Amino acid sequence: MAYINLDNKLPGIVGLMHYRPETAKPLNELAEILLRGPSTLTSAEREMIASHVSYRNECHFCHSCHGAAAAHHLDGNLDLLKDIKNNFETTEISAKLRTLLNIAEKVQILGNRVTEEDIEAAKAQGATDIEIHDTVLIAAAFCMYNRYVDGLGTWAPQEDEAYDETGRMLAHEGYLSSIP
Amino acid sequence: MAYINLDNKLPGIVGLMHYRPETAKPLNELAEILLRGPSTLTSAEREMIASHVSYRNECHFCHSCHGAAAAHHLDGNLDLLKDIKNNFETTEISAKLRTLLNIAEKVQILGNRVTEEDIEAAKAQGATDIEIHDTVLIAAAFCMYNRYVDGLGTWAPQEDEAYDETGRMLAHEGYLSSIP
Repeated sequence: MAYINLDNKLPGIVGLMHYRPETAKPLNELAEILLRGPSTLTSAEREMIASHVSYRNECHFCHSCHGAAAAHHLDGNLDLLKDIKNNFETTEISAKLRTLLNIAEKVQILGNRVTEEDIEAAKAQGATDIEIHDTVLIAAAFCMYNRYVDGLGTWAPQEDEAYDETGRMLAHEGYLSSIP
Repeated sequence: MAYINLDNKLPGIVGLMHYRPETAKPLNELAEILLRGPSTLTSAEREMIASHVSYRNECHFCHSCHGAAAAHHLDGNLDLLKDIKNNFETTEISAKLRTLLNIAEKVQILGNRVTEEDIEAAKAQGATDIEIHDTVLIAAAFCMYNRYVDGLGTWAPQEDEAYDETGRMLAHEGYLSSIP
């Protein structure tokens, strides 16, 4: 159970959002814009960035939720969760997305680890300024969500299948419907 | 200058917020609730946590803005910025705040670095559940803001005095007034 008394038994960030609805509102609005708002990146691509950063931050709950959301934007196959851990060895992703994932990985370490060369490599693959902006902010935002979830010691189901319905809901109903 | 064309010359997160007002709105709303909303922690204490985490994330812009904001909640002396770097050697802070800063430092590293012992130490000094919650979320949120600012290579003035007016504005007018 969490380190503080949440007065609910909900897992991960869901329990925290019910505990503190004032902060849940902007947190969900940010996720909705970044992951489901208008963009030339698909929602699947953006959820893959979110899930990959969460895996690198060792946040099982967020990795699983957002990997499952990415899967539900595609064919619904939860094997994607394992492949996100394996740095997209088997999933076919574009050369552009690979350069954006590289930027996200640098952001996950620390903001100042991103170099001009990382940015130029993304631009050379056709990434636009707003795509680079949103990639950096998605990666940065998950450095927040991940720390929020784990820093308060929330619980999370272990098995991938437990995230199937959450992934479906996040992909098709979005983040605003879950605001307490 | 920033890695992308922001179409403005504003420093740090200010330039980014003008570039992307859709995400600026929830980002500012979150800061307003966490740093200036109703709380049994003073705004000075909360800004000190934010500035300390930003320093540890090597984000000069956020460290300086929020350290200056903390100073303006107190006596306005910008020497506080140096002392935040020095782990509050000279500033008189409560034993409770010191245990909350310890939690924030763990969150800055990674969420799962916070231990039950860290939480118990804060509770033993009188920290409430909501104070612990907000400390974790402030620290986590600045792991986002810091990465956003530096990951996109924004520029920042070097000298402390350049942050005096921003600190005054953040302390006394808040975060919502700066939404583009």
